[in-house]
Amino acid sequence: MSDFPIPEIVAELRHVRAQWRGQQGRTDTAQREFPSRDAVARAVDALKGVLYPLRLGPPELRQAGEDFYIAHTLDSALQALRTQAAIELGYRARHDGEALEGEALARRATQVVREFAQSLPRLRQWLDADVLAAFHGDPAAHSVDEVVLSYPGVLALIHHRIAHVLYLLELPLLARMVAELAHGQTGIDIHPGARIGAGCFIDHGTGVVVGETAVIGRNVRIYQAVTLGAKRFPRDAQGHLQKGWPRHPIVQDDVVIYAGATILGRVTIGRGAVIGGNVWVTEDVPPLAHVTQASVRQAIATPPDAGPLPVAA
Amino acid sequence: MSDFPIPEIVAELRHVRAQWRGQQGRTDTAQREFPSRDAVARAVDALKGVLYPLRLGPPELRQAGEDFYIAHTLDSALQALRTQAAIELGYRARHDGEALEGEALARRATQVVREFAQSLPRLRQWLDADVLAAFHGDPAAHSVDEVVLSYPGVLALIHHRIAHVLYLLELPLLARMVAELAHGQTGIDIHPGARIGAGCFIDHGTGVVVGETAVIGRNVRIYQAVTLGAKRFPRDAQGHLQKGWPRHPIVQDDVVIYAGATILGRVTIGRGAVIGGNVWVTEDVPPLAHVTQASVRQAIATPPDAGPLPVAA
Amino acid sequence: MSDFPIPEIVAELRHVRAQWRGQQGRTDTAQREFPSRDAVARAVDALKGVLYPLRLGPPELRQAGEDFYIAHTLDSALQALRTQAAIELGYRARHDGEALEGEALARRATQVVREFAQSLPRLRQWLDADVLAAFHGDPAAHSVDEVVLSYPGVLALIHHRIAHVLYLLELPLLARMVAELAHGQTGIDIHPGARIGAGCFIDHGTGVVVGETAVIGRNVRIYQAVTLGAKRFPRDAQGHLQKGWPRHPIVQDDVVIYAGATILGRVTIGRGAVIGGNVWVTEDVPPLAHVTQASVRQAIATPPDAGPLPVAA
Amino acid sequence: MSDFPIPEIVAELRHVRAQWRGQQGRTDTAQREFPSRDAVARAVDALKGVLYPLRLGPPELRQAGEDFYIAHTLDSALQALRTQAAIELGYRARHDGEALEGEALARRATQVVREFAQSLPRLRQWLDADVLAAFHGDPAAHSVDEVVLSYPGVLALIHHRIAHVLYLLELPLLARMVAELAHGQTGIDIHPGARIGAGCFIDHGTGVVVGETAVIGRNVRIYQAVTLGAKRFPRDAQGHLQKGWPRHPIVQDDVVIYAGATILGRVTIGRGAVIGGNVWVTEDVPPLAHVTQASVRQAIATPPDAGPLPVAA
Amino acid sequence: MSDFPIPEIVAELRHVRAQWRGQQGRTDTAQREFPSRDAVARAVDALKGVLYPLRLGPPELRQAGEDFYIAHTLDSALQALRTQAAIELGYRARHDGEALEGEALARRATQVVREFAQSLPRLRQWLDADVLAAFHGDPAAHSVDEVVLSYPGVLALIHHRIAHVLYLLELPLLARMVAELAHGQTGIDIHPGARIGAGCFIDHGTGVVVGETAVIGRNVRIYQAVTLGAKRFPRDAQGHLQKGWPRHPIVQDDVVIYAGATILGRVTIGRGAVIGGNVWVTEDVPPLAHVTQASVRQAIATPPDAGPLPVAA
Amino acid sequence: MSDFPIPEIVAELRHVRAQWRGQQGRTDTAQREFPSRDAVARAVDALKGVLYPLRLGPPELRQAGEDFYIAHTLDSALQALRTQAAIELGYRARHDGEALEGEALARRATQVVREFAQSLPRLRQWLDADVLAAFHGDPAAHSVDEVVLSYPGVLALIHHRIAHVLYLLELPLLARMVAELAHGQTGIDIHPGARIGAGCFIDHGTGVVVGETAVIGRNVRIYQAVTLGAKRFPRDAQGHLQKGWPRHPIVQDDVVIYAGATILGRVTIGRGAVIGGNVWVTEDVPPLAHVTQASVRQAIATPPDAGPLPVAA
Repeated sequence: MSDFPIPEIVAELRHVRAQWRGQQGRTDTAQREFPSRDAVARAVDALKGVLYPLRLGPPELRQAGEDFYIAHTLDSALQALRTQAAIELGYRARHDGEALEGEALARRATQVVREFAQSLPRLRQWLDADVLAAFHGDPAAHSVDEVVLSYPGVLALIHHRIAHVLYLLELPLLARMVAELAHGQTGIDIHPGARIGAGCFIDHGTGVVVGETAVIGRNVRIYQAVTLGAKRFPRDAQGHLQKGWPRHPIVQDDVVIYAGATILGRVTIGRGAVIGGNVWVTEDVPPLAHVTQASVRQAIATPPDAGPLPVAA
Repeated sequence: MSDFPIPEIVAELRHVRAQWRGQQGRTDTAQREFPSRDAVARAVDALKGVLYPLRLGPPELRQAGEDFYIAHTLDSALQALRTQAAIELGYRARHDGEALEGEALARRATQVVREFAQSLPRLRQWLDADVLAAFHGDPAAHSVDEVVLSYPGVLALIHHRIAHVLYLLELPLLARMVAELAHGQTGIDIHPGARIGAGCFIDHGTGVVVGETAVIGRNVRIYQAVTLGAKRFPRDAQGHLQKGWPRHPIVQDDVVIYAGATILGRVTIGRGAVIGGNVWVTEDVPPLAHVTQASVRQAIATPPDAGPLPVAA
Repeated sequence: MSDFPIPEIVAELRHVRAQWRGQQGRTDTAQREFPSRDAVARAVDALKGVLYPLRLGPPELRQAGEDFYIAHTLDSALQALRTQAAIELGYRARHDGEALEGEALARRATQVVREFAQSLPRLRQWLDADVLAAFHGDPAAHSVDEVVLSYPGVLALIHHRIAHVLYLLELPLLARMVAELAHGQTGIDIHPGARIGAGCFIDHGTGVVVGETAVIGRNVRIYQAVTLGAKRFPRDAQGHLQKGWPRHPIVQDDVVIYAGATILGRVTIGRGAVIGGNVWVTEDVPPLAHVTQASVRQAIATPPDAGPLPVAA
Repeated sequence: MSDFPIPEIVAELRHVRAQWRGQQGRTDTAQREFPSRDAVARAVDALKGVLYPLRLGPPELRQAGEDFYIAHTLDSALQALRTQAAIELGYRARHDGEALEGEALARRATQVVREFAQSLPRLRQWLDADVLAAFHGDPAAHSVDEVVLSYPGVLALIHHRIAHVLYLLELPLLARMVAELAHGQTGIDIHPGARIGAGCFIDHGTGVVVGETAVIGRNVRIYQAVTLGAKRFPRDAQGHLQKGWPRHPIVQDDVVIYAGATILGRVTIGRGAVIGGNVWVTEDVPPLAHVTQASVRQAIATPPDAGPLPVAA
Repeated sequence: MSDFPIPEIVAELRHVRAQWRGQQGRTDTAQREFPSRDAVARAVDALKGVLYPLRLGPPELRQAGEDFYIAHTLDSALQALRTQAAIELGYRARHDGEALEGEALARRATQVVREFAQSLPRLRQWLDADVLAAFHGDPAAHSVDEVVLSYPGVLALIHHRIAHVLYLLELPLLARMVAELAHGQTGIDIHPGARIGAGCFIDHGTGVVVGETAVIGRNVRIYQAVTLGAKRFPRDAQGHLQKGWPRHPIVQDDVVIYAGATILGRVTIGRGAVIGGNVWVTEDVPPLAHVTQASVRQAIATPPDAGPLPVAA
Repeated sequence: MSDFPIPEIVAELRHVRAQWRGQQGRTDTAQREFPSRDAVARAVDALKGVLYPLRLGPPELRQAGEDFYIAHTLDSALQALRTQAAIELGYRARHDGEALEGEALARRATQVVREFAQSLPRLRQWLDADVLAAFHGDPAAHSVDEVVLSYPGVLALIHHRIAHVLYLLELPLLARMVAELAHGQTGIDIHPGARIGAGCFIDHGTGVVVGETAVIGRNVRIYQAVTLGAKRFPRDAQGHLQKGWPRHPIVQDDVVIYAGATILGRVTIGRGAVIGGNVWVTEDVPPLAHVTQASVRQAIATPPDAGPLPVAA
């Protein structure tokens, strides 16, 4: 006899799952229904090696073997991605009542992944610009290689640029999984839908949030805890959130946004503007403007006068 | 000869450890003294598969095999958890001078883990409500499955709901380890003691801190960098922190707390209230109230007038 | 025939890499050019076991075997670290045009790693003080062991104290990799160059940023989302950032800095001062002073009067 | 430049493969063509755990969890086996010009594996008889459990009994792979086609060979290096070997065959007969007969008379 | 619905197991009943590294770190062995109706493993003699290191010498598992009870069988497929095999036994004797004698006269 | 205190190792002295995938990706082999008192491995002939693919053909390690020095021994337990074995050698000859001859007359 009432708990869990599936209108299936987080993570790790073989690939790799490594790793990663893409396409088709399966599904998945693959060289170029931006923008950076090897902002952008292509190719679930892998690792939460120009540098990065419809120009610098968010969530007549409309900021080229700044709504931050730390922006900012917090009054007391102090812990 | 003075360093480290153990009043033991982080992590991963087998379990699983997978995985995970629970119970008994060991310790650990196991179906129900809340609360969410597969807020709540049961069953160390596994992964730091109602949605989540005695009602929505913290840390006559008294906020049903808001102390945020971004709250808020930052003055300057700009990097 | 145009993509990627190497003035080499993140991660994990064998070492370890475990693990970790140190030293020498290779390089790497090794007992002592500070500073802490096993602030400090020694020994790249491993895990971003006294407690920690030239005294307490940053980034005549000059705060002994506070520039926070939550500091603070946000006006409206609410999501 | 002419070697290997495929009349395919040895090995290991959970299953298993372990492990192993079975069935159909693919192939594989699964309880009964036979037949055996845990003859029979069912279900390639896994491990080479009654004991076993059409009764004991082989390989008019006809011995119940004996051709060894060590048998042996080598003359010489000695090394 | 009737098969298997346990008089237990093959294999691999650190230990080991590696590896391996020893001792006590459990069992296991540990330096000395014997006895051997790194006879003797100590310490099941690990790898089947002097060389080895009560002197050389077996298996009044009495050969110092020779029963092969290939010996052989097969008549026919040829395949 | 006297045992083992190193004239070194069995095993597994990508490579591989897989796997395997080759070359140079190190050693290793690599296409051709020979020679073989996937004789020949090239390139230690990996897996012991023509088929194989100077022609078939051995081991004036002289048989084209046959010394088995099972040959056999055991007298007795029967167990 088990020390634990396993069969009873299994039955109760089955019951709860049946409730859920009933509510969600799910039917039984013998298929794999959902992409696998582990499979996606392995594919993305392989693609990181394909993009930066000597710095993010296997330690034993040398220059002479780069192309062999890339060809095989790319081939394997694309096969794996195609499998996951077919799962997502099939899942969506099933939920949308479309008839996409068998050969047609396989062809569609192949086509989508082929387009993805062809974007990789361009991605590497954009990422190289990001790396240079980080090197030139951080007084603590010793070399471009240190940047690729250890800067979380670069890691987040590698994931984002991959995720964004998947998003454009209408694989939003895979795209989101790729983005969340970076979010978990870096604390930088960029929605795959966001459009980010080359030469982007996100420093420190923890707490950065960039929304789905945000647009960021070239050579933009962003510090930790910056939010590019929505200001309102309008609902339709049935009370459901309206999805997909432009609700996040547009940040033009050469803007700098310092730590903790919050920019909300479909506002435009003009070219070359600088947004100071902790500033809260909900309206357009003209090009080249410097926005800072007006000096906040602070109370400085010295004991014994100091009363109880509000703490945040 | 080694290139490194290993024996000397080993001896010095032994000396430092002996100092520490002396200070802490530790005695020698042949037992395993501390739960293993890896063992706890494996058990929690297994429990995630038990709760959401097709989405968080192994990729090769299909509906037809769910119950077999759950029964075996649950049995193994509970055995493993019992081992770790016995270590914590023994550790606490030793430090409290209680006589709990051998058979009695094993029985106690079994009983505690059995109670934990019986809570799992209810946990899944609460988590399903959390998932629906996320789906309905985020305009970027495409499906409930995307939410389970990739939303950090859901991951944090799965861990929290497990950790909270362990906390109630007086396994605070295991509970904390479970919570920190989610904190490390998501940047969401919920103390296992916090009571959180069903239908909770934590969006983005990085930087969220929820304190030990916080109470959160049903259908509450929380954005990134929100703190539900303590306002004061009173000390007793000996100067030691007083532990365990209610010092964190009560958040009633249907409240929304936007990003960066800080709520401190045993205040009550009334049902349906909305706390705006970056707001600092140290007093009660009435039901249905909307609290926003009064408009902060900002200084906008355009070059060449713009002087040196304070940055936060 | 492959479904994907692998050879074409490989060729394009080769072309982009060649461009990059051309721009960066790189020459071909048969050497391993960059330290391996995985190798560094393994070495640091081993060193954590060396410092706290029963709590952070392998689960099957018992007191009786501690020294054997430490000696072997230390020996292996130092060998591995030496390999990575030699790669970094060789990389730097190559980029600086110095002639450091072969035997000379090996000797230098050995010497540096030997010095590193000798610092470990002192590190453990400092870390013990950090652990006690956490235990005494957090009302939710049940035991010193819970602190070592699960507090992210302690994890971040273990990494930092290791990284700082590597930084002082002029291995900035390895140091940064060690720091980023903790940043990814905890959301606490401490530059390896920062000097931090014993008895430091970082609670919750997500979003903490401590800059390269920051100096922190003994027994300092820091909460989540605190920034110790730079205020300006001066550039030289060529428009390049000036590197290495003191640009981050000095925090004296016994200071407490509450969540979300931002302290910028080479200011001094005097001994025993307390900086309140969310406060923005760009000037010196005298010893024992308490700095708090002057009460910010808040607008509280109750429906139906409440207009559209700015949200940050 | 690589130190090795990789592209040239790759091209030459491609050429050799093309030659082979041309000779063998192979066409290109995008399918997986061959079962995977690793997948088969994992499935068989799982089945060994299903048959003997406490002795050959995972070390942490206890009696209370046996059925949960078996149900899940069996389900997974059968899924994996079905995948491999479908590959073999598809491979054979392709080579035989049959139209078996898609749904029809999947159904056929499922049906075959279902029949296989249903044979498992009977297999365990036969194997229990084998285990008892080993225990009673070996003066060195201390317990039935030692026999299951460590006797190569039992391992070989577990594999054989699984392989034989696969052979009967017309999966000869999977059957052979299962058999060879045991051959590699034990040196006992039993063709999956051989029919072996319950209560079989193969002691030591290295070098035992049992041919495809051999028939072995109940309670037969066989020692190392025994061959039950064919005597002739007739060829057809085209000079091809005739396949499938009965060409190996029939060994009736209760026979004992000592080490090194060779029995060739479709002869019958009658019930209860004993075949002595190293004996060469090519004719029927009556029931209860004892066949021994007639004493071979040996030359014993003592130095200095001993000349050069033929050695076999 | 599963494609496979899992619950039915699980039930049938449970029924068969219950039958077996009934027949064997087993009672239910919550304990781990049997040593784990994998755990034993890991411990033996560790001990091989302890005995020959640079040649059989981890590839990254260097001379300078040998003692650290040995101390830690030995400590771990002995802990693991003690766990398995306690399982075997408990198992035997349970089956013998002895009361050995809890503290007493732990003490007994510790004592036995301590004695085992103390034998290791002597084992290494004997094994060094074996290695030299192989080097001097094989014209194909290039170095003593090649012998340690690749000769199966040496591997078999390392296992045997470990297994024999376990056998003497009354852990016959662990001993057998150690022996079978070598048998599976090398095809050399030495019962742990056999006594083998230093300087033994087993060349090629496949098919060698050495029985439980065999005694082999110093500097004996043995080739492949040699059997040192029993001649008779007497049974007692109840028809059970008599266990434990001396029934295998005594081989004195400096004997050479060529390939395929079979020596049966408690005979003595005198010092310095040479047994030729394929010879069958069932009587004593005097010291220094050379025993060879008297020339066997062979039939040599040339086609077309050659009739059908008996084959063994 | 440890339960085991670890430091004492470590000291004794150190003492024994010092004795050994003293006897063997070894000096201390900081180098890796010996090739790593695991590294060699990994390289050979990779080469098997290079030679037979779809059948012995990774299960997920498809025809379209073969060349990418081969190029990368070959490049990695050759790098790894070069590392091991350099260790062997350095080891031999050190023992022979040659000055081969640093750059010169690296160049030599590269050159040797390059020559090895260039032999691979030819090896595949020879192996294809072996596979066809097995298919045509075994009535139980269903397809050429079954032969590659599961025949131990083919596995042994893949290893042998690789090992033989290494042997010719004067890497006898690596060659031996490659050969022993197959010996352990298949029980077929072919010395790397043996020359074996294309189209060789070794059936069953357990116990086959082929000596260093054996020469085997094309299309030779060999069954289990066949020995091609030496007849005498002459010693030089100092009593040391003479190494390297031709002492094993020459087997010409189209010969068949049935199970258990023993052929000793530098004899020649003429083209097309057939050697029957268990035959003992120490003289030349003319072409096309059939050699069989003259019929051995056997004693057949039936109980109750049957006396005690010699057994070999």
